[in-house]
Amino acid sequence: MAKKKLNVGMIGYGFMGRAHSNAYLKVGKFFDLEYEPVMKAACARKQDKLHAFAQNWGWETTETDWRRLIDRQDIDVIDIGSPNNTHKEIAIAAAQAGKMVLCEKPLAMNVAEGIEMTEAIEKAGVANMVWFNYRRVPAITLAKQLIDEGRIGRVFHYRAKYLQDWTISPNVPQGGSTLWRLDIDVAGSGVTGDLLAHSIDTALWLIGGMDSVTATTETFIKERPLQDDPNVTKPVGIDDACAFLARFKNGAIGTFESTRYARGRKNQNTFEVNGEKGSLYFDLEDAHQLQYYNHDDDSHVHGWRTILVTDSDHPYMKHWWVPGCVIGYEHTFINALADFLKGIETGVPARPNFRDALETQYVCDAVLKSGKTGVWERAQA
Amino acid sequence: MAKKKLNVGMIGYGFMGRAHSNAYLKVGKFFDLEYEPVMKAACARKQDKLHAFAQNWGWETTETDWRRLIDRQDIDVIDIGSPNNTHKEIAIAAAQAGKMVLCEKPLAMNVAEGIEMTEAIEKAGVANMVWFNYRRVPAITLAKQLIDEGRIGRVFHYRAKYLQDWTISPNVPQGGSTLWRLDIDVAGSGVTGDLLAHSIDTALWLIGGMDSVTATTETFIKERPLQDDPNVTKPVGIDDACAFLARFKNGAIGTFESTRYARGRKNQNTFEVNGEKGSLYFDLEDAHQLQYYNHDDDSHVHGWRTILVTDSDHPYMKHWWVPGCVIGYEHTFINALADFLKGIETGVPARPNFRDALETQYVCDAVLKSGKTGVWERAQA
Amino acid sequence: MAKKKLNVGMIGYGFMGRAHSNAYLKVGKFFDLEYEPVMKAACARKQDKLHAFAQNWGWETTETDWRRLIDRQDIDVIDIGSPNNTHKEIAIAAAQAGKMVLCEKPLAMNVAEGIEMTEAIEKAGVANMVWFNYRRVPAITLAKQLIDEGRIGRVFHYRAKYLQDWTISPNVPQGGSTLWRLDIDVAGSGVTGDLLAHSIDTALWLIGGMDSVTATTETFIKERPLQDDPNVTKPVGIDDACAFLARFKNGAIGTFESTRYARGRKNQNTFEVNGEKGSLYFDLEDAHQLQYYNHDDDSHVHGWRTILVTDSDHPYMKHWWVPGCVIGYEHTFINALADFLKGIETGVPARPNFRDALETQYVCDAVLKSGKTGVWERAQA
Amino acid sequence: MAKKKLNVGMIGYGFMGRAHSNAYLKVGKFFDLEYEPVMKAACARKQDKLHAFAQNWGWETTETDWRRLIDRQDIDVIDIGSPNNTHKEIAIAAAQAGKMVLCEKPLAMNVAEGIEMTEAIEKAGVANMVWFNYRRVPAITLAKQLIDEGRIGRVFHYRAKYLQDWTISPNVPQGGSTLWRLDIDVAGSGVTGDLLAHSIDTALWLIGGMDSVTATTETFIKERPLQDDPNVTKPVGIDDACAFLARFKNGAIGTFESTRYARGRKNQNTFEVNGEKGSLYFDLEDAHQLQYYNHDDDSHVHGWRTILVTDSDHPYMKHWWVPGCVIGYEHTFINALADFLKGIETGVPARPNFRDALETQYVCDAVLKSGKTGVWERAQA
Repeated sequence: MAKKKLNVGMIGYGFMGRAHSNAYLKVGKFFDLEYEPVMKAACARKQDKLHAFAQNWGWETTETDWRRLIDRQDIDVIDIGSPNNTHKEIAIAAAQAGKMVLCEKPLAMNVAEGIEMTEAIEKAGVANMVWFNYRRVPAITLAKQLIDEGRIGRVFHYRAKYLQDWTISPNVPQGGSTLWRLDIDVAGSGVTGDLLAHSIDTALWLIGGMDSVTATTETFIKERPLQDDPNVTKPVGIDDACAFLARFKNGAIGTFESTRYARGRKNQNTFEVNGEKGSLYFDLEDAHQLQYYNHDDDSHVHGWRTILVTDSDHPYMKHWWVPGCVIGYEHTFINALADFLKGIETGVPARPNFRDALETQYVCDAVLKSGKTGVWERAQA
Repeated sequence: MAKKKLNVGMIGYGFMGRAHSNAYLKVGKFFDLEYEPVMKAACARKQDKLHAFAQNWGWETTETDWRRLIDRQDIDVIDIGSPNNTHKEIAIAAAQAGKMVLCEKPLAMNVAEGIEMTEAIEKAGVANMVWFNYRRVPAITLAKQLIDEGRIGRVFHYRAKYLQDWTISPNVPQGGSTLWRLDIDVAGSGVTGDLLAHSIDTALWLIGGMDSVTATTETFIKERPLQDDPNVTKPVGIDDACAFLARFKNGAIGTFESTRYARGRKNQNTFEVNGEKGSLYFDLEDAHQLQYYNHDDDSHVHGWRTILVTDSDHPYMKHWWVPGCVIGYEHTFINALADFLKGIETGVPARPNFRDALETQYVCDAVLKSGKTGVWERAQA
Repeated sequence: MAKKKLNVGMIGYGFMGRAHSNAYLKVGKFFDLEYEPVMKAACARKQDKLHAFAQNWGWETTETDWRRLIDRQDIDVIDIGSPNNTHKEIAIAAAQAGKMVLCEKPLAMNVAEGIEMTEAIEKAGVANMVWFNYRRVPAITLAKQLIDEGRIGRVFHYRAKYLQDWTISPNVPQGGSTLWRLDIDVAGSGVTGDLLAHSIDTALWLIGGMDSVTATTETFIKERPLQDDPNVTKPVGIDDACAFLARFKNGAIGTFESTRYARGRKNQNTFEVNGEKGSLYFDLEDAHQLQYYNHDDDSHVHGWRTILVTDSDHPYMKHWWVPGCVIGYEHTFINALADFLKGIETGVPARPNFRDALETQYVCDAVLKSGKTGVWERAQA
Repeated sequence: MAKKKLNVGMIGYGFMGRAHSNAYLKVGKFFDLEYEPVMKAACARKQDKLHAFAQNWGWETTETDWRRLIDRQDIDVIDIGSPNNTHKEIAIAAAQAGKMVLCEKPLAMNVAEGIEMTEAIEKAGVANMVWFNYRRVPAITLAKQLIDEGRIGRVFHYRAKYLQDWTISPNVPQGGSTLWRLDIDVAGSGVTGDLLAHSIDTALWLIGGMDSVTATTETFIKERPLQDDPNVTKPVGIDDACAFLARFKNGAIGTFESTRYARGRKNQNTFEVNGEKGSLYFDLEDAHQLQYYNHDDDSHVHGWRTILVTDSDHPYMKHWWVPGCVIGYEHTFINALADFLKGIETGVPARPNFRDALETQYVCDAVLKSGKTGVWERAQA
């Protein structure tokens, strides 16, 4: 059966550019889909690097101005992998041009931008998805499935951490092409938008909406050199660390914490759900596992079960290898892309869409605000 | 060498009565100490049960009125294991009578009581200790040692949980002789005084004092039957769950959470310290282990090290068995008692004393207050 | 109810002397039993050390000749905790004197001795038990219970390891009062009798008898100084390490390995059972846990379950503390003693008795023989 | 820089066909190499399935007769991913045609075949590698590196397991296109060639050669239906399970076990090395981790370190993502292919070559022989 081709124009060639390119390259090899993404054009400002990148990955053409990319009639999908402060303008223009839009997370610099973007997308009626790729870790998808099966029951507690340690040294610079996440003007925030946004997206998906939050944020290293000009030092504007308490609409209590100063934690994105009937625990550093406690088990064999999420009846895994063979970080993007394409095919769009990602933005903004006001802030529209 | 005898009068024969009795029975068998505790008198109100208890454990005599116990000239040490709402009166009377005082945690129903007690104890100048027994888990003591050795460096983060799941059923009654911890009038608070007090004591010991806290508390089951009269139902006054954020005086950020609604967690008392040079992690459900990450290790062999805390050069362990042979819950009391007796012997008193426990009480009160006010509260004197 | 007293005469005051004394001291405090052991007499050759030991633990009297101990009319139970080469003579004499006999493992120096001992015991008809204390680790007892419940089904595989690392240094001496386990003349064998005997006892109990074995043994350090005369060096006669394959009567395949040269393993006594319906895994270094895989679970939640064996419906645990509170190494002896006393009370004797321990001896002898012959040896009577 | 192209002709489109195709597709995207593999021709007997496979993966042409493939002048490399009983003929023909040869493991049906193949390859002088892909799990490569750095010292023990559970049901058929591994005529052996060959290859690489082995093998399910004709049942000729003891040339003792009847173990390929100075432990089900015990650590912080093998200074990882982001099963093939191509580039050929794989074959044959003879068999040339 001939595939329907979707021409993709991707903006950004950094870390996410690689991850997305790999997804376009592989998705059709492992998933049987009606739509086939075509790596039509890669777009970035630096022509030299862009050219090498495009050649390596097999992008057919390049553009150095994202407006030109959007203007091209042969592009069906705009994929935004450039820094946070570019998302809004590109997404709105793409939507207005009738393109499908894929956007890296966090959706926007703040709620105000997010509302504009979401309204533009919905007005245009184009397919859209935000790359909260961790929803497509099979173990996290399985967690969602177990909750939907009613295995957890009334939820009492949710606790999430997202810990890294790569900015402890004061010598790590800020800004520039690879360290813009440390520059408040480009990133909008620090760990809140970069890491906690993942934790929040997962929580909202698994448990439902939040009512309000109270937070504390900290910037441990007060100034850092610039990546592009190491002799110049600038105050650090981002949050190095952030912790918050949440009240969910369903009555559950949440605790969230993120930092880049947790020595020894490389990418420890964890969550735990405690419900009346059972509990779940996940740690991204052991991404192939989901831990599950089932109160319905016979009493003397109660225990936390480590599910090795590699069987063919686990989410996504029948597309990959055989039981016991793990997939890696990059597969979350491939799985997400497969879902996006399947959504177009079936008419049941993949999530999270811009509207969903806006919900996460509301929480992020409330967290950052509470970090300043010291009181509980409303974490919803 | 003849031992110096210390005659002990212990109040309370419940769970803590057993744990303390076992400590008096065993401490001299495993530790070489100048002072020998003598199980002179057990005290409780119900004569029948008390008698059986005393006979089983070898308490020489019994008393049904703690005032009579304190009046006895043959008693050197008063050990308070009765419910929280009795601590103040007994401790003050015992101090005024010149007795040494051992008191179960939490020290008091609130800071006001704690101040009175501490002042009375210090005025009397009597030896005193509060049974925060977990300081004497060898792995926790080792954590303190590693911090004191400078292995962690500047501390960025501290996170603690104390999770249980035994009150999820609404059929669990409150009050009565074994469930007074669920009765606000007897316990003073719920998980805050019972469980978080342990977490706070450990944190203050390891990291130092807290500046302020913001908290949320919840009572999931709103009313429960009475243990002593199952046909009568009473509103639940205690906090079933409590989470708080803390700012430490040294600039570190703390997150704390406790609940009795974490399905599958039986006695999961954990902490993690993240510092510039290293990190530590502990979980009471694996009490024989301490996890340690050392940033000074060669880069390609960086990793979290699971220290099996059973070697003879680990705290307390040379008194027990051989490497690989674990000790249990009850040993924390024996180790604590050994320290108390050694403190008398050496003149360097064991800790935490009443003054230390009062610091914990300040935090508990601030947490409970913040749970009501919704703002950051001062967590110190 | 008045207890029936059983006067105990214990031989040996070393490591096992402490462990047994502690059991006699505590068993009645935690178990409600008809029989009460009385610490009547401790026996060893060195009067000075014996006296201090007896005083510390509360043994009423002492004897320096075990024959005199057996002759005493006031002794009901002889407990043999002295080195292996003394077991036979003492056990037979005690049996002939009509005493109950408790004997440390391994039962004997070899099968020939074991047969003599077992026949003497059975002829005398006295209560008897061999201290294979690990059967009374609650998690191991639970494993037995789960197998008996039919949860594992047809067994395909059994694998056991018992790894330590304390003899790697060639400076560790042999012989003497604390290192007789390294002296072939006193111990009879090395890791085979000391450690593998435990693994074999557990295997026979859980899975049933063995048919035959093939083994390899090694002595890595060929000579060692004497503990009692460090200037004298003697060849090492014991097996430092031993590995064997086994065929069980029920068709299962077994692998067993033991060593004192596994750097980093302190007391890692593990077993795994793989059956048609489920599997079990245990590690003594995490003695409070049993891992269980249940094939009957729903397919997408299959997983290894970590059972925290501290609940009141787990073996022995209702006698101790509360869920989440672990017991330690020493409690295995207390639990075993409780079973022995209960066996007398109920008329259903505790196991393993001498006859059971003789089965283990057959396997040990076959293993050591195969280590020399290089062929499969019969591992049963 | 223009790449030098290497035209690949791959035989087999099953599980390994996918894994290898993925490697050819991706290697150049992540590794900067002089040589670029070109997916020139895929070869298999069934034209229909082959065509679909080739189209999906981008193989330029197809062949249904491997002899025609070898005859093609435009093919530089023959990659053999077809069943074991085809390896010899193809490999020899390819070598004689001057092609480079990549061959799936096990090398051959037996040593006799392996010798012929190795001699043909060496006579032809062509580049060659056998796909023992697990050598390229970064954690295993790191293990090799740590041993080469002298961190383990004199080795006392090596123990390996390779456990699966997918053939427990008697309904699993044998033979056919996907289950030929259960057919003795096609596979040559059961778990020995399929799974233990991996364990042996790793052991020989890490520790060095074996002297002799003693083994036991078992076929639990005696007959199975045919995959291609379910009404026909045939005796099972393969070994379902195999355990063996080994003596290494360096004096170390080895234990090895493999089975497809270990309920709950999906792909548990483990090894542990115990040396005088340190120990290592690996489990393929947690492939991103290596555990390391360093005896040189300060005594009170001795512990098993879990190295998260995802940092840029760990083997292969700088080519992939960022610390904390794992790679999966398929990456072992990509890493291996990169090494093969780099070997051509540098003139230092990648290993294991045919000669290395022949060493593994010697051990496999000795193991299977000992399983029949019951005595120790020589496990080397």
